[in-house]
Amino acid sequence: MAERQLHLNVNMLNAGFYGSAWRAAASEPDAFLTAAHYVKTARIAERGTFDAVFLADVPALSDRPEYRPFHALEPTLLLTAVAAATENIGLIATASTTYNEPYNIARRFATLDLVSGGRSGWNVVTTADAAASRNFGFDNVTAHATRYERAAEFTEVVTALWDSWEDDALVGDKASGQFLDLSKVHSIQHSGRHFSVKGPLNLPRSPQGHPVVVQAGGSEDGRELAARHAEAIFSVALTIEEGVSFSADIRRRAARYGRRPEAIVTLPGLATVIGSTDEEARRREDRLWSLIPGDYSLVRVAGIFKVDPANLDLDRPLPDAIELPVDGSQTFFRAMYDTARRDGLTVRQLLRKLGGGTGHRVIVGSPVEVADDIEAWFHAGAADGFNLMPDVLPDGLEIFVDEVVPILRKRGIFRHAYEGSTLRDHLGLAMPVNRNGARRIAS
Amino acid sequence: MAERQLHLNVNMLNAGFYGSAWRAAASEPDAFLTAAHYVKTARIAERGTFDAVFLADVPALSDRPEYRPFHALEPTLLLTAVAAATENIGLIATASTTYNEPYNIARRFATLDLVSGGRSGWNVVTTADAAASRNFGFDNVTAHATRYERAAEFTEVVTALWDSWEDDALVGDKASGQFLDLSKVHSIQHSGRHFSVKGPLNLPRSPQGHPVVVQAGGSEDGRELAARHAEAIFSVALTIEEGVSFSADIRRRAARYGRRPEAIVTLPGLATVIGSTDEEARRREDRLWSLIPGDYSLVRVAGIFKVDPANLDLDRPLPDAIELPVDGSQTFFRAMYDTARRDGLTVRQLLRKLGGGTGHRVIVGSPVEVADDIEAWFHAGAADGFNLMPDVLPDGLEIFVDEVVPILRKRGIFRHAYEGSTLRDHLGLAMPVNRNGARRIAS
Repeated sequence: MAERQLHLNVNMLNAGFYGSAWRAAASEPDAFLTAAHYVKTARIAERGTFDAVFLADVPALSDRPEYRPFHALEPTLLLTAVAAATENIGLIATASTTYNEPYNIARRFATLDLVSGGRSGWNVVTTADAAASRNFGFDNVTAHATRYERAAEFTEVVTALWDSWEDDALVGDKASGQFLDLSKVHSIQHSGRHFSVKGPLNLPRSPQGHPVVVQAGGSEDGRELAARHAEAIFSVALTIEEGVSFSADIRRRAARYGRRPEAIVTLPGLATVIGSTDEEARRREDRLWSLIPGDYSLVRVAGIFKVDPANLDLDRPLPDAIELPVDGSQTFFRAMYDTARRDGLTVRQLLRKLGGGTGHRVIVGSPVEVADDIEAWFHAGAADGFNLMPDVLPDGLEIFVDEVVPILRKRGIFRHAYEGSTLRDHLGLAMPVNRNGARRIAS
Repeated sequence: MAERQLHLNVNMLNAGFYGSAWRAAASEPDAFLTAAHYVKTARIAERGTFDAVFLADVPALSDRPEYRPFHALEPTLLLTAVAAATENIGLIATASTTYNEPYNIARRFATLDLVSGGRSGWNVVTTADAAASRNFGFDNVTAHATRYERAAEFTEVVTALWDSWEDDALVGDKASGQFLDLSKVHSIQHSGRHFSVKGPLNLPRSPQGHPVVVQAGGSEDGRELAARHAEAIFSVALTIEEGVSFSADIRRRAARYGRRPEAIVTLPGLATVIGSTDEEARRREDRLWSLIPGDYSLVRVAGIFKVDPANLDLDRPLPDAIELPVDGSQTFFRAMYDTARRDGLTVRQLLRKLGGGTGHRVIVGSPVEVADDIEAWFHAGAADGFNLMPDVLPDGLEIFVDEVVPILRKRGIFRHAYEGSTLRDHLGLAMPVNRNGARRIAS
């Protein structure tokens, strides 16, 4: 395939990105507590030859659980269940570097990578959530810079552990009785500011070398981490210009670490509300919006901007006095804030534009409109593909797969069938060189 | 079912307990790196109406990996794959309290419990392995007493998190838009010597209330932890007398914590080498023994007793000067040492008696001999059942299920079919009372 190809990932955000997705006719409110819901969604994505499915995560009860499904089942376990029920699709799980130990994370993702035949990815997050910090012995969120410093060292340790085995270390020779050639398994002897880890890992490398490293933060520290380590990035971009500028910035930074531009795939978030016609899409969006309780919108905006809900009026613009939080999910907050200011939106209009309150771009339209939008971003260099967030799952994904994917294929920018078996194959990423004497040839 | 019934668990120890299991004709050396191997084994156990399958664990490359398969794939992920491929059988995974955070462990086991419909169990270990300690920032193994103090507090926190939701907290009312009743979800506000955890957990209770707590240590501290928290115990007993005495001791201790005797199921380890006749069993054992390299035996014994292999002679008794390690897997070492002394065994004879070097009791015999042995222990009160360790997996388990289980059923001491759907149902354990206002009735 000579032409540059689009990459598609689906964010399996419980009932769907729309705040009221769980109230849609097709939804079962407790589906987010079953593996079956995610298996069903992943199988639809696999039918659509998506690169991967993705699970975000926060290790705490958060996200206004009185109003909508929340992060519950642990992602690495859940994707192991999905791996067993799928053949080709990539499996990207989120795990926090602030509230885990690198040996455990290296091992869990290596496990998922082996049992899936080389389909796993690790979305590295530092977890800005305050409730999470209180579940792990802290009174407050660790400062941004400290979290990212730890994350950088954590990622170094994890990737070193993934490389601690030479590719032919496991002998398994029944005749001689030699099981493992210990001379080809190496301690990592890491001793740093945050961690001291001897290694080696207790698992060999997988068919894709090691899990794909994914990153999602858009802050200065987040971009540096991505430039150094990320092979795929879930970014936030509300306009083509932002997308182009973000990609250029990341590639510039990556070059400083000696990395080539094609070593990083950038996937902005794109929330979708799709109907067979533009009118049907708008009716679908009307219905979903009408199911979002007003007080949910208010407490969500108030929570993000740390103001008293009593001081917000849904039908007026955001108060002038608002200050952006200095820590937390800065990228999302800033995008929301800038959008509201630029377009002179009331709080209600802002929320509706963002589909009930996620910080990503939302498109409401027919399959052709959605395909046009995707193609325009792709050709402008604003995206290598998208991290899709269908309004309702699996329903909204099914519409995308059945009605948008065929258009993208006809236009020659998206695969008709899987051409490889690993997540790296799908994303067009090279096999990582094993720092301990690789035998494999980079593909 | 009025009669007291036997409980059977199978330890899915990679290729099988026998050191040379991976060299047996039916074995694939790298099967231990696939989910399929464990799924196949679990399905055979389920056909035999076993209570549960079990995975031991060490977060390090240990166990003499140059000679045999080792702990590799992470148990909670692996059992999630097994859950997807089975219907009834319980799923017990090991996780260390020394190298994890309680919120993460509470969540992973609650996840496994929910996706399996209430079939999970957590084997609480403190991890005495020195290599493991060096993967988590320590130069040496944390002292025994400190590990157990942390384990006790860890287990308190985990069980409190499992109870942080009232059983009817999740509302999911599409009409009103109320998703969760936050007044029925409770912070745990734990503040102790080792942990500070606010909670609540981000998952509801499962159909069995919460995962079954399992414990395996036989030391003084281990017994106290078991008496306070364990609902099932994997014990070590080489004679009926030891089994009876262990059970009595645990029940005496448990009574001091206000617990009833039937709240704890004791399952001694039992390694099996089974043939259709006694002669066939002995031939099978001969063959497996002949495949264990002599130097493997030597380094293993030397490693356990911390002596130079050059000072050991396979054909002489253990040296007089041997001192038992003051820390580490004391229970196993002591059992091995006592056996060797009592029976005047050479090092080689000791190893062979222990099937190449595990510390558990080994029985070599025909199906009737094995069934007689099990029944004798069961009726003597030396065991509520067994943690079986077949010589070769899944082969040795298949023989047990096809030839021993029918005898146990005919004798009226083992179920013909599952009578419930949760691990608690199988083990005859009551639904745990929810400390936050249970609505469910204990079964």
